[in-house]
Amino acid sequence: MKEREKMELILHPKSEIDSRTKRLQSRMEDLAGAILFQSVDMLYFSGTAQEGLVYVPADPGAEPVVMVRKSLERAREESPLEVAPLRSLRNLKADLGVPEGARIGLELDVLPFNNYARVERALGDAVLVDVSERIRHVRSVKSEFEIRLIREAARMLDAGIGSVPEHLREGMAEIELAAQVEAEMRRMGHQGSLRFRRFNQELPMGHLMAGPNAAYPSCVASPTGGVGPSLLQPQGPGFRKIRRGEPILVDYGGVYNGYTADETRIFSIGPLPEELEDAHMAALEVERAAAEALRPGSSGRRVYEISEARGEELGYKDHLGGPVGAKCGFVGHGVGLEIDEIPVLGPVDHEILPNMTVAIEPKMIYPGVGVVGIEDTLLTTDEGPERLTGLSQEIWRV
Amino acid sequence: MKEREKMELILHPKSEIDSRTKRLQSRMEDLAGAILFQSVDMLYFSGTAQEGLVYVPADPGAEPVVMVRKSLERAREESPLEVAPLRSLRNLKADLGVPEGARIGLELDVLPFNNYARVERALGDAVLVDVSERIRHVRSVKSEFEIRLIREAARMLDAGIGSVPEHLREGMAEIELAAQVEAEMRRMGHQGSLRFRRFNQELPMGHLMAGPNAAYPSCVASPTGGVGPSLLQPQGPGFRKIRRGEPILVDYGGVYNGYTADETRIFSIGPLPEELEDAHMAALEVERAAAEALRPGSSGRRVYEISEARGEELGYKDHLGGPVGAKCGFVGHGVGLEIDEIPVLGPVDHEILPNMTVAIEPKMIYPGVGVVGIEDTLLTTDEGPERLTGLSQEIWRV
Repeated sequence: MKEREKMELILHPKSEIDSRTKRLQSRMEDLAGAILFQSVDMLYFSGTAQEGLVYVPADPGAEPVVMVRKSLERAREESPLEVAPLRSLRNLKADLGVPEGARIGLELDVLPFNNYARVERALGDAVLVDVSERIRHVRSVKSEFEIRLIREAARMLDAGIGSVPEHLREGMAEIELAAQVEAEMRRMGHQGSLRFRRFNQELPMGHLMAGPNAAYPSCVASPTGGVGPSLLQPQGPGFRKIRRGEPILVDYGGVYNGYTADETRIFSIGPLPEELEDAHMAALEVERAAAEALRPGSSGRRVYEISEARGEELGYKDHLGGPVGAKCGFVGHGVGLEIDEIPVLGPVDHEILPNMTVAIEPKMIYPGVGVVGIEDTLLTTDEGPERLTGLSQEIWRV
Repeated sequence: MKEREKMELILHPKSEIDSRTKRLQSRMEDLAGAILFQSVDMLYFSGTAQEGLVYVPADPGAEPVVMVRKSLERAREESPLEVAPLRSLRNLKADLGVPEGARIGLELDVLPFNNYARVERALGDAVLVDVSERIRHVRSVKSEFEIRLIREAARMLDAGIGSVPEHLREGMAEIELAAQVEAEMRRMGHQGSLRFRRFNQELPMGHLMAGPNAAYPSCVASPTGGVGPSLLQPQGPGFRKIRRGEPILVDYGGVYNGYTADETRIFSIGPLPEELEDAHMAALEVERAAAEALRPGSSGRRVYEISEARGEELGYKDHLGGPVGAKCGFVGHGVGLEIDEIPVLGPVDHEILPNMTVAIEPKMIYPGVGVVGIEDTLLTTDEGPERLTGLSQEIWRV
């Protein structure tokens, strides 16, 4: 209760926005600047997610230009920068002072084609370039301001997942239990959904599934799937009744003031088959190996290879991250304003740097049976990672 | 409880997909076909929202081609059409049999630029055209299959909003009450969020705000805003405590098997100021006038004009749909798989046809004070509209 009363909207200090701006400016190379429209990037570089745009010029002496259509009044309360009204994109070139033939960055991975076309018409002879990877790299290293919020998200998550024993009853539907856990976190200020950058990856607050449902495949970029409540939300909790002796996967994202932490714990009513208990212990081993490797100077690829090798060594090659032929292809991912941030702990060369917040999630998938495993959010430091999510890692027997 | 046990994933009969396909084919004009990627459109034309694409050829003798990357197995269980594996877009031209120089429809309002560019490279000399308006028009007229699901969504919504008196206590935060109402609907199978087609319009399950918070402006295309729990979700319920004698706006979308209904009711602890009670009665009058005008042959523009005229006649010109200078510019919208469907009851010439499901939402905005008003989802018929949402329309005094 006290927690909740303390909560309020947290505004961005000007110094926070300045430092983000500088870091993007240092990556501009031949760009004259970047015009950002997506609400997450808009928030990150302007301090407000109201509808409009933020222009970050490459010139390190220049301030970002924030223009807002709706709500201008609110954007002015929220942003530490000056906010101008946005009436139309037609005068964008003059409004932003874009030089003739300039190279301008846009978020081409998320910007719908029609929005792109409007910018293209407005900017005339500018060359439009995808700036999303640069933005994602800037966003992958967190400030003290952000780390504080992600710590709060982890606490929200611990409270939400930790409430499962209060609510779990044999014979209740997955979605009934999910409704309770989600309400716990919503009450603490959860935004009600997670932000996935990738197209078509709409996520509910998490995946809560029991027995074979947890291993049921889905369209989502995740080791687990779930039947879900409908064909349009074909993932996460569905209407299957939770039974005794099957693993209950509880995998949620907590979100506090926009910032995400990610955690998975396994629950059961009564004991699980020994094979699954063993597989769970192996997943903890894999998490430990991956966490140990998660150090500045290493890479997403290297951590992934180490976790795969450890899984194989322990005899779980055909279960870790998915069954044969349907492996998810990663063992972790960055978390922040979005749930699919850099670094990917998978076959990509994302360098591990200090102050990244990374979810490690080795899961053992048994099609037709269930899923066991673990997920924690870690903060990278030069001295090795700090675990931000705090719940006990064993299987929680209720 | 019985409701819930009955619930299961509802698959699409082949005849349903055939009729949707035919209706899009009849609007193709000079297009050779349309390739659809967005999960909502994918579901609508293929019966599965798994990750992939559906190609609807213009030739009325041809079947749609469904290709799925993940999960292929699941798409095959869900779709009544044949589903081929999608490995790469590189052979798309051959895979779909797209003729040289053909005009091909794409969802240019939602397709990210990079996805567009991949299709463009794969199709070579094809001319790519925005097909979204046609799709939205096809989707605006509902089948019996769809109307049945929207009726269930309305019942979910009545149960959720109808539970407010059980949960409402003076001094609780908006978001605490919201957590309870949302849990009621989640338990019944709500997907946990609403689908807004428009870019950057992420919505939680609805807007539940008390007093001045309800009138606080936001980035969302809605007459109401709300402070929300964070700058990244700057709308809907926040942490303000609900007080005696202020209007509590409860505006939710119910979603059953992907299909949405939309309803708003006003609650209060103790009586409201007379001015607001009167404004609420006026909103009911405006809804009645708009509903009466919502007949096949009319248009969104005409219904909007009638509601605006009625509001002005009753003396609420400066409150209906927003305060002076910040009117939302519409009095209603189609609902279905998305919450911003055709017809818009605003300054556009969307023809009213039978079997449209339309939310009418005249709301009276008093900045600094609160919001009163109403919203119901109606089904258009030749004999005049049928109201699908069923709760009593007066202010609910708790």
